[in-house]
Amino acid sequence: MDFKEELKKYQEIINCELEKYLRKEQCPEEILNQSMEYSLMAGGKRLRPILVLATYRLFRTDIETCMPFAVAIEMVHNFSLIHDDLPGIDNDDFRHGKPTNHKQFNEATAILAGDGLLNQAYIVISNTLQNTKKEELNKKIAVFQEFSKAVDRMIAGEFVDTEFEGKPISEDYLDYIHKNKTGALLTLCVRMGAILAESSKEDLDRLISYAEKIGLAFQIKDDILSEEGNEEILGKPVGNDKKLGKCTYVSKYGLAEAKEKLARLTKEATEELKPYREKAEFLIELANYIEKRNK
Amino acid sequence: MDFKEELKKYQEIINCELEKYLRKEQCPEEILNQSMEYSLMAGGKRLRPILVLATYRLFRTDIETCMPFAVAIEMVHNFSLIHDDLPGIDNDDFRHGKPTNHKQFNEATAILAGDGLLNQAYIVISNTLQNTKKEELNKKIAVFQEFSKAVDRMIAGEFVDTEFEGKPISEDYLDYIHKNKTGALLTLCVRMGAILAESSKEDLDRLISYAEKIGLAFQIKDDILSEEGNEEILGKPVGNDKKLGKCTYVSKYGLAEAKEKLARLTKEATEELKPYREKAEFLIELANYIEKRNK
Repeated sequence: MDFKEELKKYQEIINCELEKYLRKEQCPEEILNQSMEYSLMAGGKRLRPILVLATYRLFRTDIETCMPFAVAIEMVHNFSLIHDDLPGIDNDDFRHGKPTNHKQFNEATAILAGDGLLNQAYIVISNTLQNTKKEELNKKIAVFQEFSKAVDRMIAGEFVDTEFEGKPISEDYLDYIHKNKTGALLTLCVRMGAILAESSKEDLDRLISYAEKIGLAFQIKDDILSEEGNEEILGKPVGNDKKLGKCTYVSKYGLAEAKEKLARLTKEATEELKPYREKAEFLIELANYIEKRNK
Repeated sequence: MDFKEELKKYQEIINCELEKYLRKEQCPEEILNQSMEYSLMAGGKRLRPILVLATYRLFRTDIETCMPFAVAIEMVHNFSLIHDDLPGIDNDDFRHGKPTNHKQFNEATAILAGDGLLNQAYIVISNTLQNTKKEELNKKIAVFQEFSKAVDRMIAGEFVDTEFEGKPISEDYLDYIHKNKTGALLTLCVRMGAILAESSKEDLDRLISYAEKIGLAFQIKDDILSEEGNEEILGKPVGNDKKLGKCTYVSKYGLAEAKEKLARLTKEATEELKPYREKAEFLIELANYIEKRNK
């Protein structure tokens, strides 16, 4: 199957699963559900859950095992987007070409929908633990622990990013922001896939290195798109980082160096996967996709 | 031991445990940690963790088993207070006689500190699952599941409360708000204590009935204090509910009927505990304390 087809197929599977795991309780909180669904189903790339599934498939085929965790990580990702967009943080009006959650609903709803999505991820995890056979429990509990720690790092990364808005920032701190705000969840994806598939320690290390590199590449590409992307394709205004005085890879090192680093990281990431040969084809293409994407 | 002494002793134990389980990672996110600690250690009554421990002690003495869950529920409670106080929701300036989190720090920090506390609760739970013997795992996973569902109900209750601000509200909806916004966590406390102590189904039902009644009593008392409490003792302005046009038990039924209902609920709650005789003395006094408290 060609990469774009396979990516689309993955996205369809994920979208279908997300609908299943959404908050269902209705009356009188319909609007809360709608608000959570609005952001979760707004058409993201589903990069994180796809990374979980594709990592798992390097080793095993029964992807149902990791589906709840794949769904949970997408919920957490969307919770973070809703809260980051809030007037009190980035104050963004558009995402994926649609009004942000607080613009579509209101601020109170957006705060609580974000809270609800974060918590829903843990409802999904607790349900899957409850339905797990004894001999499989240990690895799922390990995944739950990794999950909660990665979310913590993501929140801390977002905090430091916000703290340094409009201030000069050292290379170390910029690195910290990238590694945590974006990197923590992306690394978690491969970690979850590998732990659930019971991969070797060597495989795990290799995959984490791949994920760290594409995580940083993803963030640098985000910074580049935020500087010179196409607003219509991106579905959000370009130049907001600059306006807010955000310190990004681009503002610190310039466009040329950022692009060079992006290409180098992508190459290094794909090299990590060579031992898996054709089995890793999709993950290799995924790294290239992150480098070349225009939204 | 007299009730007030025992309450104080419990509070000291909880405060000491909370410090242990706080987010520790430092540099460069010290302020995030400070903000989480600021609200968590601001001097709440610790009603929820105490309820977990006191319920557990009806049946067993080794309270260390439920300590992580007691800590986690207090973290969730404080996350909900930080977010409820935000300008986008209740816009409150004071809590426990101190500036609210977003007043002391800023809005972005308060949003992320709330997120961090909610997630920290799940870090604590995942760590305790990781360190649990196989034969004890089932009940702790059941507690994790109840925990995540109760937090969801709390968020939904807060959402409906916010939605109906300044609008007329039916008795059913007011009931829904009380049962979920405050009741869900209070019921969770006894549920966790009873499940962890492996109580009988009959005991569980009895304790849930007790918790539902003191939960509603707690909310009604809150509404009464918000109308006629002493600002200095309360540590927050009185009359905010009225100003916001919040529909409360008092605004809907009047002070006299609210007080009557409060007394009736307290009496019914304590009657549920009669079978436990002197063992339940503390929980009975706790119900009376909720009725009589002036903050």
